[in-house]
Parts: sequence; C-alpha cells; structure tokens
Amino acid sequence: MLSLKHFALTLCKEKRSGCVIRHLTHFASSQSNSIGNNSKTPPQSNPSVSSYYKVNNQSAIDTAAGKPSVRLTPYMILYSGKSHDGSHLLKSAQYLWKELPVRIAHRIHEFRSLPFIIGCNPTILEVHELYIRAFNILNNHPAIRTADDEAAYSRLLRDLLDDHTHVVTQLAAGFKECRKHIQNEDVVRQFCDRTLTSRLGIRLLVTHHLSLREEKPHHVGIINKSLRLKDLVEKWAEFTRRLAFHRYGKSPDIRLSGHIGSTFPYITLPLDYILPELFKNAVRATIESHPDASESSLPSVHVTIANNEVDFILRISDRGGGIPHAVLPKVMHYNFTTAEESTEQRLEVDPLGNIIDASNPGSGSTMSPMHGFGFGLPTSRAYAEYLGGSLTIQSLQGLGTDVYLRLKHIDSKHDAFRI
Amino acid sequence: MLSLKHFALTLCKEKRSGCVIRHLTHFASSQSNSIGNNSKTPPQSNPSVSSYYKVNNQSAIDTAAGKPSVRLTPYMILYSGKSHDGSHLLKSAQYLWKELPVRIAHRIHEFRSLPFIIGCNPTILEVHELYIRAFNILNNHPAIRTADDEAAYSRLLRDLLDDHTHVVTQLAAGFKECRKHIQNEDVVRQFCDRTLTSRLGIRLLVTHHLSLREEKPHHVGIINKSLRLKDLVEKWAEFTRRLAFHRYGKSPDIRLSGHIGSTFPYITLPLDYILPELFKNAVRATIESHPDASESSLPSVHVTIANNEVDFILRISDRGGGIPHAVLPKVMHYNFTTAEESTEQRLEVDPLGNIIDASNPGSGSTMSPMHGFGFGLPTSRAYAEYLGGSLTIQSLQGLGTDVYLRLKHIDSKHDAFRI
Repeated sequence: MLSLKHFALTLCKEKRSGCVIRHLTHFASSQSNSIGNNSKTPPQSNPSVSSYYKVNNQSAIDTAAGKPSVRLTPYMILYSGKSHDGSHLLKSAQYLWKELPVRIAHRIHEFRSLPFIIGCNPTILEVHELYIRAFNILNNHPAIRTADDEAAYSRLLRDLLDDHTHVVTQLAAGFKECRKHIQNEDVVRQFCDRTLTSRLGIRLLVTHHLSLREEKPHHVGIINKSLRLKDLVEKWAEFTRRLAFHRYGKSPDIRLSGHIGSTFPYITLPLDYILPELFKNAVRATIESHPDASESSLPSVHVTIANNEVDFILRISDRGGGIPHAVLPKVMHYNFTTAEESTEQRLEVDPLGNIIDASNPGSGSTMSPMHGFGFGLPTSRAYAEYLGGSLTIQSLQGLGTDVYLRLKHIDSKHDAFRI
Repeated sequence: MLSLKHFALTLCKEKRSGCVIRHLTHFASSQSNSIGNNSKTPPQSNPSVSSYYKVNNQSAIDTAAGKPSVRLTPYMILYSGKSHDGSHLLKSAQYLWKELPVRIAHRIHEFRSLPFIIGCNPTILEVHELYIRAFNILNNHPAIRTADDEAAYSRLLRDLLDDHTHVVTQLAAGFKECRKHIQNEDVVRQFCDRTLTSRLGIRLLVTHHLSLREEKPHHVGIINKSLRLKDLVEKWAEFTRRLAFHRYGKSPDIRLSGHIGSTFPYITLPLDYILPELFKNAVRATIESHPDASESSLPSVHVTIANNEVDFILRISDRGGGIPHAVLPKVMHYNFTTAEESTEQRLEVDPLGNIIDASNPGSGSTMSPMHGFGFGLPTSRAYAEYLGGSLTIQSLQGLGTDVYLRLKHIDSKHDAFRI
C-alpha cells in the first residue's frame, strides 16, 4: 500500500488545501497499517472513505438517481404563464424541489463511475462533495407550500448557484492535474459533456425561477423575448477587446455583418459562455500569429449573423493562421490547449486566482485570462449540442479559422431541445 | 413481354435518336414472338442484345478487367524525367498501351453491373458503347516500338479524348431520364463517383502524354510547375461573370483574398472543371436571391485562398441566401438541381444543344448554361476526393453559403493521391 500512500501524498503536494486530501492520506495510512499487520481486527474507521458509502446519505442518493429527470422545452417555460397571485412562482419552485435532487443524484452517480484514480483527484473530489452537499440540502428541504416557503427556497437556490460558480474551472483544473492517469480520452469527454450540460440545464432552470421573481422588460424568466443578437455580439466583442488590450496592449477589430437587425426570443445565458470563448480564441490567434503587427495592421475578426426560421448561425472568421492539421483533431479534447506552457507557469504562481468563470465577467473581467485549461471549445460545443445545435470548425491552415455556431430557435416548429 | 416492348418504346419516345434503341425495340419484338409462339426454335438472332455478350469482344474485356490498374502518383509522373531522344514518350505510350484497356474494361464491367432498367437507358447505353468502342480500338492496337508508332498512337488518343468529351453531360442526361426507375440513390452515387473519377484519371494520363509532346513553359506534361492559383481563379471568375452577363444581364463581383501570391506545382485540369462549377453556383445564387438588385448592389462573392505545406484551400463565400435545411442533404446527390423546372423547359427545346463540357470553354463558352443536370457539385466533390482532398459546404441559411475546396499538394511529404 506504499504506492497508494505515496500517491495520496503526491496529490497533497499537487494541491495543498482541503480536508478531503488529508482524509485520503489518513485513509492510505490506515489501510497500510491494517494490511501490514495482517491483523483480523477491522481496519480503523475512516470518515473520508466510508463517507462515500455511508455517511453521505447514499441510499437517498441512490433512490433519487433511480428517478427519471423531467426536462422542459423552452417553449414550455416561455408559455407556462405568469399569474398575479404569484402561483406560477410556487409551481416553479415545487417543480424544482422535486427535480433538482434527481438531477444532482444523477451527477453524483457519474462522479462515482469515474476511474478511481481520477475520482480521487482532490479538485474533482471538491466538486463531487459540492454536489453531495447540494443534494443533502435540497433533498432534506421541506416541501414548498406557501409564498414564504418559496421565498426561502429561492434564497437557498441563489446561494447554491454562487457556491457552484467555479465548477467548470474546477473540473478543468482537476482533469488537468490527473491528465497523466487518463487512459481513454472518451471517459473524460463523456463525463465532462454530461456533467457540464447537466450543470447548464440546472443553472438555466434555477436562474429562470429566480428571474421570474424580477421584473425585466421583454423577459420571461431567462428568456429574452426579443434578443437582438447584434447587441450581445457587440457586448462580448468589446469584452474580448478589453481583455486583449490588457494582456497584449492591442486588439484586432471585431466586425459584424449579416442579419444584424434580427431579433428573436432566446436564452442569453449559454451565449454568455460561448461567445467570449470563441471571440477570445479568434482574437488571441490573430494577435499571436502577427506578433510584430501594429494594432491598425492586425486583420479584423469577422462575425457574421445568419437568421432563418429554423435556426440562427454565427460565423466567426479570423486570420489567425488557422489550426494546423496535426492539432485540429485535438482542439475539441477537454484540456487540450495551444498555450500549455504559459498556463503551467501561471498556475505555479497563482493556482486558480485569476481564472474566473467567463459567464460572470462582472467582477474583475479584464483580469480574465485569454486562455487557460483548454475547456473553452469542448464546453462550448457540448453546450451548443445540448441546445440542439452544433459548433464546427473549418481551418484554413496557414491563413485563419472559421467557426460556425448553429443554434435552433426556441420558438421553432421543429423539434426544440429540452432543458 | 408486352411490358418490355412497351418499355423500349417508351424509351424511344424519351430519346428519339440512336441505333441502340432501335435494336432494343427489335429485341423486344423478337422476344415477344418467340415466347408468344412457345416455339422450340431459338429466338431470332438479335445483334443489339447479343452484342453485349458475344460480339463486343466480351472475353477480351473480361480478361482485361481481371487485371489490376497501375496507378501513378503525380510525383512519379512529375519526376519521371524528359529525355532528348524522346524515349520518355515511348515509355509513357507503352505504359498507356498496357494500362488503358484495363481501366476501360473496369468501366465496362461497371456499366454491366447497373440495374438492367438503368443500363437500358439509351443515353447511358451510348456511353457504354463509347467505352466498348474505345476498348476495342485500344486493345487491338499493336504494341508500340518506334517513335512513329508512338506518334500514331498519340493521334489515336487525341481522337478518343475528343470522342469522350461529353461523357459527363451524357451520363447526367441519362441518369436524369431514368431517375424514376432509381430505387437506391447509392447505386447512382457509387457508379457516378467511380465512372467520373476513373474518367478523370484516364484523361489526366492521356492529356499528360499528349502534353509531354509539346513544349510549354513551366510545364511537365499536365503539371504546371508553378501554378499561380490567383490567375486560375481570376480566369474562371471572369468566365463565370461573362456567363452571368449573358444570361442575367448582370453579375456580382468576385473578389479574391488570402494567399494570393502563392505558387506551387499542380495539375490545372480538374480545377478547370471544379472552379467554374463552384463559381457558377455562387453567382447564380447571388443573382437569383436578389432579383431586383442592380449590379452595383449585388453582394460580392468572396474567394479566399489559403496555402500551407500539406494542402491548399479555396473558400468561396456568397450571400446568395444559403441552402435551405430541407435541401442541404440532397445537394450532393447526382441529378439534384434547384433549377429543375427551367432545365426541363430548356431540354424540351434543345436536348443537349447548349450544354457544353465546362472543361472546354473555348468554343462558345458564353453559351454554357449557369446550371443544368445537378452534376456539378457531386462531380466536383468526387474529383476533390479522388485528388486526396474534400469539398464541404457550410450553409448560413437565409444569408449565404460557404464552400471549402481542400486539395493536397502534389509535392507534399504526406500521402499523395494516385492518378
């Protein structure tokens, strides 16, 4: 068992904080002792390991995980109506009260299906425990019967949303830490695709409920009834340009054309993740492939909007040199990044400090990195596919890259996705 | 047998010319008699049907079809050298003398594998017979031993090339005629892909041999040692614009950007087919989706060249409205055209008259149609794949279309295609 102890200690060095890792080291020691002694007495009770079987409400998790999730179409949540007596809020909270423990239990089961060596990674364990904690809180919550119950439940949801803000970044860091133990890239892809899109779904539902409590013009919960894509593109283009100025002292123009006047109902939240990711890639490639260019001579990034009855399409075209043939098959792998070394260096200095969730640019947005763990593209693709769309890349190697983001309209007569 | 006779007569109405169809009618009558009489005397000898089993040198075809084809890389034909005594010409002719009957026999076998009802179509039969005739001529040709032999053989090859000029158009017309009998689209696709790319290969080899006899600066046979893609793009852009002026009285600009200065060795011949096809699609879509626009307000077609060590890429972007979702899966089907009705009408008046092979624009080029049988895109894709590349479409529905033509360099260190 020396190797397991050694492994746990190595993990300790990789990640100095957190009680989980101390438990693991403890576990390794106690296992080592019991086996070394070849004693018949049962091994010393170990809270950190047994917790995954006993303490953490495992039977309740199993029961909830056995139930199917009830997924809603955006159309259903858009037209479920709004009552003056607030009964729509009560119904929405009652739906969440039933639904959220089921969804979270499914996630916990998925964490437990990870290869042991991956599941033991302290950063991944932290997220796992965050989900267990959320499950226990939500599953033990009494039924919601009154407006006061709903208000208290909503405060709880708001807190949980905040607690889970950094999950994407944490998973990105966790998988990066244990990358050397990963035999099969598909395990990572399937786990991350499901975990991240399920998280997106939960956040959409919770944010929708919380938004129903606010009055915002043209909005029904998270749905902007007349989203002007141009405005959103310009907001994230400006955000990305500020980021680039901060980091490189210059930025290419981001130009917009196509159906710039189009407005339609849509949910902004996933676009608030995807758009900055795509713009950052385009801007970074442009600047780094023209290292000596002055700002005025940097080739523009062109964003084209196309809108039709079925879907809308964003094409982001840059002249950033393209994605080389050898690299292209890997860009959709989680944790693949073309900036591996500089990221490593930054992590030495400040493990997670300046990495913020791109969907929360409000706080210190210009401190957000231009690139990080290589989660941007695969997460964006997973989100796009979850939303019934796609994200495809056409590389013009040696010249530039075109990225196509296609998303189905939520009021389309065609099959809409379910949240 | 009434139905077979009826079928043959129907074909006769569909296609008034040609001895083949008279033979088939004859066949139907004679079969009808022999069966109607229930006679024991053998059916009347029928030259048109039996010819496909006996007269047309079937055993020689079978023997040749049993041999493998010897395919060459462009690198091999580029660096096989040029001797002052003309021995390279002799070697090249001797290679063709062995190789061409084998390749043509493979094609004939393929015609015989078509479903009977398709194989009986008079226009497809014409092409089939053209191949049989070519096989007989080439297979019976005495071995090539002297420079005079080579010269005579080359004249023969030149004549055969001319005889086969319209094969793509003929197949397109033939499959269009018998479209109602086609159960399985894959049969058409596989037959056409193989027949058309094999034809391309044969024409490349023959044209290469004939070109070796001429002195053309920067050329080794069909290989332009320093092709300037920009020049070729501009030539076909201008050709397409003239076509559009002739047909519509206006044309959008075709603008070029990217690696416009790049030159590299390549074979022009397949590009002389693909480029006008792609440009015609883009220009036609632009004009037809802006019916009331003046010429100056038509959105430009943008052609982007990217060049790198492995391949070169041409992106053709139009603002012609895009390819609707329902249509997109069909645009790569042979015979699919968005101009079905107008084509039908034109065919009534003049079955093949104004349809010329796009690779021979010299004669009456401005009379060439902007669209026809729906063979342009699938043939272009088949050619691109034959050349180790690809042709992909990204439709921005409601706005425009991007087409990506990717082709491997012929002097690449990576796997080159074989001709």
